[in-house]
Amino acid sequence: MEILLIKDALVVPMTAKEGACKSFQASVGVVGNRIVLVSDEVDVVSSFLDKHPDCRIMDGSGKALLPGLINTHCHAAMTLQRNHADDIPLMAWLNDHIWPFEARQTKEDIALGMTLGMAEMLLGGVTSFVDMYFEEDHCVEVVDRMGMRAVLGCSYFDATIDEVLQSAERAVKAAEGKERIRISIAPHAPYTVSEENLQRGKRFAEEHGLDYMVHAAETQDELNYVADKYATTPVRLLDRLGVLDQRTILAHCVWVDQEEMALMRERGVTVSHNAQSNMKISSGVAPIAEMLREGVCVTLATDGSSSNNDLDMWEEMRSAALLQKVTTMDPLKLPAYEVLKMATVNGARAMGHEGELGVIREGALADLILIDLEKPHLQPIHDPVADLVYCGKASDVDTVIVDGRVVVENRQIKGLDLKALYRQVADSVHRILKIQKKDL
Amino acid sequence: MEILLIKDALVVPMTAKEGACKSFQASVGVVGNRIVLVSDEVDVVSSFLDKHPDCRIMDGSGKALLPGLINTHCHAAMTLQRNHADDIPLMAWLNDHIWPFEARQTKEDIALGMTLGMAEMLLGGVTSFVDMYFEEDHCVEVVDRMGMRAVLGCSYFDATIDEVLQSAERAVKAAEGKERIRISIAPHAPYTVSEENLQRGKRFAEEHGLDYMVHAAETQDELNYVADKYATTPVRLLDRLGVLDQRTILAHCVWVDQEEMALMRERGVTVSHNAQSNMKISSGVAPIAEMLREGVCVTLATDGSSSNNDLDMWEEMRSAALLQKVTTMDPLKLPAYEVLKMATVNGARAMGHEGELGVIREGALADLILIDLEKPHLQPIHDPVADLVYCGKASDVDTVIVDGRVVVENRQIKGLDLKALYRQVADSVHRILKIQKKDL
Repeated sequence: MEILLIKDALVVPMTAKEGACKSFQASVGVVGNRIVLVSDEVDVVSSFLDKHPDCRIMDGSGKALLPGLINTHCHAAMTLQRNHADDIPLMAWLNDHIWPFEARQTKEDIALGMTLGMAEMLLGGVTSFVDMYFEEDHCVEVVDRMGMRAVLGCSYFDATIDEVLQSAERAVKAAEGKERIRISIAPHAPYTVSEENLQRGKRFAEEHGLDYMVHAAETQDELNYVADKYATTPVRLLDRLGVLDQRTILAHCVWVDQEEMALMRERGVTVSHNAQSNMKISSGVAPIAEMLREGVCVTLATDGSSSNNDLDMWEEMRSAALLQKVTTMDPLKLPAYEVLKMATVNGARAMGHEGELGVIREGALADLILIDLEKPHLQPIHDPVADLVYCGKASDVDTVIVDGRVVVENRQIKGLDLKALYRQVADSVHRILKIQKKDL
Repeated sequence: MEILLIKDALVVPMTAKEGACKSFQASVGVVGNRIVLVSDEVDVVSSFLDKHPDCRIMDGSGKALLPGLINTHCHAAMTLQRNHADDIPLMAWLNDHIWPFEARQTKEDIALGMTLGMAEMLLGGVTSFVDMYFEEDHCVEVVDRMGMRAVLGCSYFDATIDEVLQSAERAVKAAEGKERIRISIAPHAPYTVSEENLQRGKRFAEEHGLDYMVHAAETQDELNYVADKYATTPVRLLDRLGVLDQRTILAHCVWVDQEEMALMRERGVTVSHNAQSNMKISSGVAPIAEMLREGVCVTLATDGSSSNNDLDMWEEMRSAALLQKVTTMDPLKLPAYEVLKMATVNGARAMGHEGELGVIREGALADLILIDLEKPHLQPIHDPVADLVYCGKASDVDTVIVDGRVVVENRQIKGLDLKALYRQVADSVHRILKIQKKDL
């Protein structure tokens, strides 16, 4: 059990219920996986040191201490397909590139892609992520080894529901006793999974005490499809099927109306906003500012690297804020504190830790990141939150602590040989593309 | 005179006239301020080494070599006001924060802010910038010292034209013999400078052989003002005044119609697109993809740190591309190569070096940047240009060469003590805000 004292950092606590809360210079103590001390009083800090004379001391001066960022929707293994096919029409992208690639990758390739994705996330200050992909049972071990907090969503289409629910059972077993890892059931979308199978996944989730997630209302095509087939909208359809509740994450929600927002608030659904992905593949602009005003729990996410093309939550914060401002023509929309809250406080609900994750207060889970403020693009510091949200970058993250364990220090991921990982990734990609070419 | 050989880098030459050009492994030789060699042939590289046995060799393996990025519109000194006032209405921002701050800063403060801005730009791979601010004559020396290439735009309102044109004369003298630095005349905007003074600045520019730049068609308010006062649009007004030609940069051009695009192309005007600034202060979305299709020379820029809030051209490339895709609902718009061209090839025109800057070919000016590709967010490398544009970050820039001189190496700016600079900046800001408080 590690005991840590982070001394004299600029703490951004994210504990305000309404409005923005002030950041302040303080020291933060961690025992096991919990924050046990947040104080700027010399006496209090001294008595912590007296009590824990062997604790590890980290210097926080010149640094900001934030809750770890929470990425509530990604397909981490798809980093193998980063920049594999860009700037082409959606159906050509899927038919000619993404799907043939996926058909030829092995479980080992997927675990490798996920490792690369996690390396990127950790170095960018992401401590928790919600994943959605295939072979998640095979990934429990690599997620555990990397030390991240994760919800692994077992994704299915109609044709694959049987095998995926079996894989989900194996994943649940593999995750037993691993407190940082939860398993979730993840039907692909209302336009690719039947009503029956959307419900069957939910029943399975309830029986096993699991979360549930689904892509919803992402594109106008989906809207048209659901209107034609079910004479309703994606969110209303999901509600009619009884799958919307506090354990459900809806990814995207670009095309939702006022009444659906009220519905999502009532059901306690978590929305995952993917600003850059929605922009890049021209899905549209989700009405995030409105959803937040309506009381919907909106979180922030990167989506997969094949459509984004990275897993960078700093860019996602900035893009989300700027996109709301320009599309509503109101520079007051989605201010810096609000968007940082989406990436921390709100994200905690998606992780099943509402109130005890994404904040820095005594008793909360110790997922923390130290940001080096001594960079030209972060100086001078007029307003720390605006500084971090509008100017902070993944590369400013110096130290990452997950569940009380130091996983990144001085921008090095402990126990991971990155150069070896790049070689393995290159080999995998080379092999996959070779098969693909031969077969086409 | 420095002689350099960058060995075995992944060269992204940006030399294609139409479509995208391939990147390739090659070595690049620099003598004085020019690229004299671009070759992947062992014999050719050997003979360069025989001819220049004392040349400095840089290892380009695992790195991409790009033309330095060109930021065609910024107010570099405004980095002092970074995050000074965000998420508030425009007029409160100007009246209560920006203008009182500016009224109290000295020439020394401005030079300091510009130094910080240049430090940020250099570390982000920006080798050239076009500035627009006050006291530019006082900044010639610091720009020269930092080793950057710059066009310094002396900015005026009606009330300040006399003193600014005098300052411009001093700036021209100060820049004599400094080939990297050009002086430009920069009336603020059609809604803040009279017709007479817009023309007077142009005449002055012509008499002195200088460039000319002006904010134009940035907001709907400006459109309304110009419609009320002149019964026309900003771009048409400027054309009527005879100030549009190949030596004119129009910053923003958010609100322009098809006919104005044709006009801009005919006049040979350079447009500076500021995606993130336009988003953050809710100016609107400039029809960049359309302008490019119409043959307008569109370049890329950050605007000032008080509205952006940084000077990061990598984010600007990404934001420009993504914003066009989502607002046109067409994922094919502004592909990666096109946007990299805006930031390099097209930007060269704004610097007065069309065709010999922003490209890597023998004979071109040696403004070059080396990007470290061995980062998780840049792996695997399926398509180098998409990789750089969609995933590359300022912090991936390892080495920066301007005009043949190595100014940044291993992410260190030569001869600049950053910590001392941060302290000076903090002191300046502290002093300025104290005066401000007392006087309000």
